[in-house]
Amino acid sequence: MLSLRAERSNLCYNIDMKLIQVITLFPEMFEQVLGSSMMWKAQNIGAAKFEMINLRDFGLGARRRVDDTPYGGGDGMLLMIEPLMAAVEFAKTRDENAMVILTSARGQIWKQETAQKFADDEQGLIIICGHYEGVDERIMSIVDREVSIGKFVLTGGEIPAMTIIDSVVRLLPDVLGGEKSAEIESYSDGETLEFPQYTRPAEFRDMKVPEVLLNGNHAEIAKWRAEHSRKAE
Amino acid sequence: MLSLRAERSNLCYNIDMKLIQVITLFPEMFEQVLGSSMMWKAQNIGAAKFEMINLRDFGLGARRRVDDTPYGGGDGMLLMIEPLMAAVEFAKTRDENAMVILTSARGQIWKQETAQKFADDEQGLIIICGHYEGVDERIMSIVDREVSIGKFVLTGGEIPAMTIIDSVVRLLPDVLGGEKSAEIESYSDGETLEFPQYTRPAEFRDMKVPEVLLNGNHAEIAKWRAEHSRKAE
Repeated sequence: MLSLRAERSNLCYNIDMKLIQVITLFPEMFEQVLGSSMMWKAQNIGAAKFEMINLRDFGLGARRRVDDTPYGGGDGMLLMIEPLMAAVEFAKTRDENAMVILTSARGQIWKQETAQKFADDEQGLIIICGHYEGVDERIMSIVDREVSIGKFVLTGGEIPAMTIIDSVVRLLPDVLGGEKSAEIESYSDGETLEFPQYTRPAEFRDMKVPEVLLNGNHAEIAKWRAEHSRKAE
Repeated sequence: MLSLRAERSNLCYNIDMKLIQVITLFPEMFEQVLGSSMMWKAQNIGAAKFEMINLRDFGLGARRRVDDTPYGGGDGMLLMIEPLMAAVEFAKTRDENAMVILTSARGQIWKQETAQKFADDEQGLIIICGHYEGVDERIMSIVDREVSIGKFVLTGGEIPAMTIIDSVVRLLPDVLGGEKSAEIESYSDGETLEFPQYTRPAEFRDMKVPEVLLNGNHAEIAKWRAEHSRKAE
């Protein structure tokens, strides 16, 4: 991949660029998040490109309707199949081989391993932001994968989409620099192992940085850190 | 709580209002998210109030420094204790009994049960957005709870903070209306149980809504839904 990128660096379109398209009723929610430091850098160096697709643009009729009541009864409004399918098909005109993801409470729980897989893969992503009231089931005919970020209910799929994007994009080549190694010990096998860290001042109020971290003995420091590592949960 | 709210409805300050303060270097990331429909409504009806505290305002020196290298070596920059502590103490001047939460990879995994507990509780929240490179451990002297939204690495604690806020605020009284019941079957015991849902049209391309959902027989519909419920993961 690197050599191809080098050869083609004179072209506008970077073939390693990960195209991430998001289908949402609230594209404005993403503006500041995708403009923030790491995401901004990823776009700036051509590692990723984000396209927001407003589901409303594919709504039906003059009122651009996108939801309706469920057949068989029940509360809440479901996102209709027609606007959703039209939006996904529009996204596929830009990137026909993209993986289509639906954020959904019943999806597979997102984890670092999946983020890494998505980052390593050259496939673009089309993320449909689900809605906690529901989505017409027939969208599954075009969805490749349902993703949940955890066992809790959110109002919409926008925050889960941001979660997926952040965790994938930061793993794309060249997006993070030396900062990255800080996480090598975490999540390497799905487990979190973190040790306490300290920075200046060495004493704050009555709280001192452990002496061993100040003495520069690397072997002792490594030993202390290993002893003080904690697993998540 | 309801009677107190009724009695005091003529006051500007609603005593049931949940004050959520967020300490972050990127307050602008929250603007559109907290201004979106459900969050906007929660503020509008006085169920919640959000205050963003820019950690940079508590930075040290003319350059408002907020991070420094770790003692004992290692990559990355840690958020320093002094600005963090000053920001939390500032937040506590507004709400001295607030629960202080740090978003952190090693925290307890967020779940619906915790969101419900936080929503039921009258305590305000102060959420410190962690940073994947780390935070000076001494902040734990003032942190009540570390929360992780899942087993994946994000660039900062901003998206986790949004996740916590969305999942708690939607459970506050009067924030959701009838829409809410749609989720009663989900997560009631930490499990997701969802059945496929459909809305108009009854036929889209070659995909038809299951006949049973169209016939109006509530007993059959309930049976079909129970049989087609799926657990997450």
